[in-house]
Amino acid sequence: MTELNGAESLVTTLAASRVELCFANPGTSEMHFVAALDRIPGVRCVLALFEGVATGAADGYWRMTDQPAATLLHLGPGLANGWANLHNARKARSGIVNIVGDHATDHVPFESPLKSDLNGVAQSVSHWVRSSQRAAEVGADGAAAVLATRDGALGRIATLVLPADTAWGGGGVAQQAAAPAAAPQASEAAVDAAARLLTALGGQAVLLLGAAGARDERAQWLAAAIAAKTGCRVLAEFYNARMPGGRGRPGIARLPYAVDATLARLAGAQALVLAGSVEPIGFFAYPGKPSQMKPAGATLLTLAEPRQDVLAALQALAEALGVRAGQDLRDGRPAAPAALALPSGALTAESVAAAIAATLPEQAIVVDEAVTTGRAFGPLMATAAPHDWLQGMGGAIGFGLPCAVGAAIGAPGRPVLALEGDGSAMYTLQALWTMARESLPVVVVVFANRAYSILQGELKGVGAQISGQKAIDMLTLDRPHLDWVALARGHGVPAVRVDDAGALVQALQRGFASQGPCLIEVVL
Amino acid sequence: MTELNGAESLVTTLAASRVELCFANPGTSEMHFVAALDRIPGVRCVLALFEGVATGAADGYWRMTDQPAATLLHLGPGLANGWANLHNARKARSGIVNIVGDHATDHVPFESPLKSDLNGVAQSVSHWVRSSQRAAEVGADGAAAVLATRDGALGRIATLVLPADTAWGGGGVAQQAAAPAAAPQASEAAVDAAARLLTALGGQAVLLLGAAGARDERAQWLAAAIAAKTGCRVLAEFYNARMPGGRGRPGIARLPYAVDATLARLAGAQALVLAGSVEPIGFFAYPGKPSQMKPAGATLLTLAEPRQDVLAALQALAEALGVRAGQDLRDGRPAAPAALALPSGALTAESVAAAIAATLPEQAIVVDEAVTTGRAFGPLMATAAPHDWLQGMGGAIGFGLPCAVGAAIGAPGRPVLALEGDGSAMYTLQALWTMARESLPVVVVVFANRAYSILQGELKGVGAQISGQKAIDMLTLDRPHLDWVALARGHGVPAVRVDDAGALVQALQRGFASQGPCLIEVVL
Repeated sequence: MTELNGAESLVTTLAASRVELCFANPGTSEMHFVAALDRIPGVRCVLALFEGVATGAADGYWRMTDQPAATLLHLGPGLANGWANLHNARKARSGIVNIVGDHATDHVPFESPLKSDLNGVAQSVSHWVRSSQRAAEVGADGAAAVLATRDGALGRIATLVLPADTAWGGGGVAQQAAAPAAAPQASEAAVDAAARLLTALGGQAVLLLGAAGARDERAQWLAAAIAAKTGCRVLAEFYNARMPGGRGRPGIARLPYAVDATLARLAGAQALVLAGSVEPIGFFAYPGKPSQMKPAGATLLTLAEPRQDVLAALQALAEALGVRAGQDLRDGRPAAPAALALPSGALTAESVAAAIAATLPEQAIVVDEAVTTGRAFGPLMATAAPHDWLQGMGGAIGFGLPCAVGAAIGAPGRPVLALEGDGSAMYTLQALWTMARESLPVVVVVFANRAYSILQGELKGVGAQISGQKAIDMLTLDRPHLDWVALARGHGVPAVRVDDAGALVQALQRGFASQGPCLIEVVL
Repeated sequence: MTELNGAESLVTTLAASRVELCFANPGTSEMHFVAALDRIPGVRCVLALFEGVATGAADGYWRMTDQPAATLLHLGPGLANGWANLHNARKARSGIVNIVGDHATDHVPFESPLKSDLNGVAQSVSHWVRSSQRAAEVGADGAAAVLATRDGALGRIATLVLPADTAWGGGGVAQQAAAPAAAPQASEAAVDAAARLLTALGGQAVLLLGAAGARDERAQWLAAAIAAKTGCRVLAEFYNARMPGGRGRPGIARLPYAVDATLARLAGAQALVLAGSVEPIGFFAYPGKPSQMKPAGATLLTLAEPRQDVLAALQALAEALGVRAGQDLRDGRPAAPAALALPSGALTAESVAAAIAATLPEQAIVVDEAVTTGRAFGPLMATAAPHDWLQGMGGAIGFGLPCAVGAAIGAPGRPVLALEGDGSAMYTLQALWTMARESLPVVVVVFANRAYSILQGELKGVGAQISGQKAIDMLTLDRPHLDWVALARGHGVPAVRVDDAGALVQALQRGFASQGPCLIEVVL
């Protein structure tokens, strides 16, 4: 066998460790890695024209596969360009292996243009960081990086810095990542305490689902059965990395975004039982309003932490409560399709939601970055075909289009619907090009309200008074209007603009039928 | 007088400290700052639809004004999105005050979606970081941040984190930043040593200009006069933040990009005298090639560091050498316009350069991010109308369009030409929208070679062998072609595609005449 160079040993290691996708934006320092991808089978490579697309795609890929993808990034600036979507992935608890090329080790001491505090950037967003120092160690470092992408049930961000000489140097040794440890089990004491609390409090208790508790349809059914038995309420966190929904599913409601609405929703609760969730905290702080959303004095009881086996914990809880699975637990098959009414007339939050609910194909993946426009969708989506709903978890906009890329690649054959605000879509619009190149079945709907509408609402919340043109200019995207049809076509994606609900329905139907990417600009 | 809140005290402080521009992409945490901009005159606010546009614009603004602009960014992700162009600005030694909104101080301890290692991100790219802790201190912190944007002749990156409650809290006290210290003078010993060395070595010495040595036309003339007197060669660094060029100017040549060409250019030099420059280092390392470009054994003598008063050092050196300013130093008035031949026929590196040289208006600002295409422009640009040439200094692509925004705002009335590769322009194409909104006179030329051409060259340099389709796909921007005319129009910028030199000439002439933004896609 020919001796491997470091880059070859790394690609071989990734392939042997089930890292089968690499979302890449390479530069000079990564050329040997690119060359190795050419020669060694097992790792598919997808080009992104901006690093935030690569990192967001890796997030979406994990959410649909529970497997880490690699990203390939160019020194400190490349990693920094991917930082915001790594932050989002971190909050979504997605596992990602970043391969970041660096200068050759003997070039690093010099103040070259691309020299930066690469380690500082990496540390600020990664759970695990290592810089390979010799070609012979690159394989082992890569295997360690893959292993570091998991902590129990959770994904983590691992960043492996690959100096150019460790990529081109000989003596590489490929490895295979060790099998990750299984997610730890919730304690019997926690299960018993949860059972006693829910029995005692009934309707004054909330069973709050998060992580696998919201993500696994079986966990949702268990929670619904526990609620039926004990009278407790079941809610999911406001943000969820992936949440099955639609017809024939339990229809778990999520906590609202706004502080006042969340406080109202939780009012009267004497206990929150956390099943993969964490204590509800406000997205932002507002003058005179609390950061912690639970009612004063209410008990917080952790049934299972996000990193634990939440499904098993709910099964144990159901057993302790005498919930009979045969009766209370469905088998997950969707109910028969209903013929939903197709809306027509003016575009409103309701008619848009109705159009989406009525046209969504079976097993669609919905990526939700519709920000203000999307908040009204919840109830109607319960009537839509069974689907998975993916939300931005870290509050950094620019998550949606890249996540749609990764979700489509991670779940081939499933249609993807990306719901975008115009403000958020602008952050990483380069993702459209990758959708075109890879012929991904993504229907992008951009809600063109031509404003940062969320800020117009937030202004009142924080008590800021704005009246003048300077401030209004900071909150509006008019002058000029963005032309989303032109932007999409510029990236090679067909597009259409709609201004009534009937046209939206038609565009969605055509989009889902096309099996390639398309964009619909919804002028609000 | 009404009591100021913290945000109002900060805006008043910035205005009093000559920070007159704010490139902004605000979120909820920054709403009180936006409201304060509304009420308090003196700070113009320009909206960017992505933070990398805001930070790159602040870099361009400093380069044309020697004054810091503020940026307004939203927590860790907003700062991270601006990181790459802050890196570029840092390498260009531009001064910038980043105002980064953060959660209210009592909300920070909680793990909310936007909670991140904001301090870590800030430290990794800033010279100075502070987080305000009370509204009463925000004015003083802002004044300290403005002062921190300078170190002698150099600009620096200062990042002020503004928790929401320090913005909305009362008791704000506006301040004025202290006057910055003057740039330190080069030592007499350094001047004497440089004079002796140049006299002794003549043609075996290189006077290497950087920072103000390349940026100030008077410094260029002094260097040319010193060369005429001593026989030394004068060169500028490969990358320069701003470099006057064109007809009637000294026509200082720059070091080449490629290692071999640089080694050849410096061959035979027994000494490098550094006038605002630093030791030449290769951009990347390559197997078997040196990182340090100076000939082995050659002396490095620092006449003036970049932070020192380079112009004064060159004046002192000229005096020590007996160079008579009246004879050898021109007064900087451009030579009479020459009628350059207008090219026609096929688009080649030469005909493109000729078209630009022939049509460039007087006092244009050229922002050069043409990457591979731009390397051939040097000699012909010496025949163009007098202009300033601005280059990316940190190697992070996505610098050019934002820099053009800031340069146009910093130098009102001067036309701006942005030369872009298609790969680099994609990184921060959102800058086009700001050009349209602000009606900036920027002519953007995108060289559509539909590839990361630089990587195709770098491959050979690093010795990587690429033959397969997977690797080729990583280096090409085809499938699909980007349609730059559509992309520009989508952002509200008129655009045209040209495929011969005559059409390019016409498009440039029309573009410069329009006094608003336009984009020309040059299909190579």
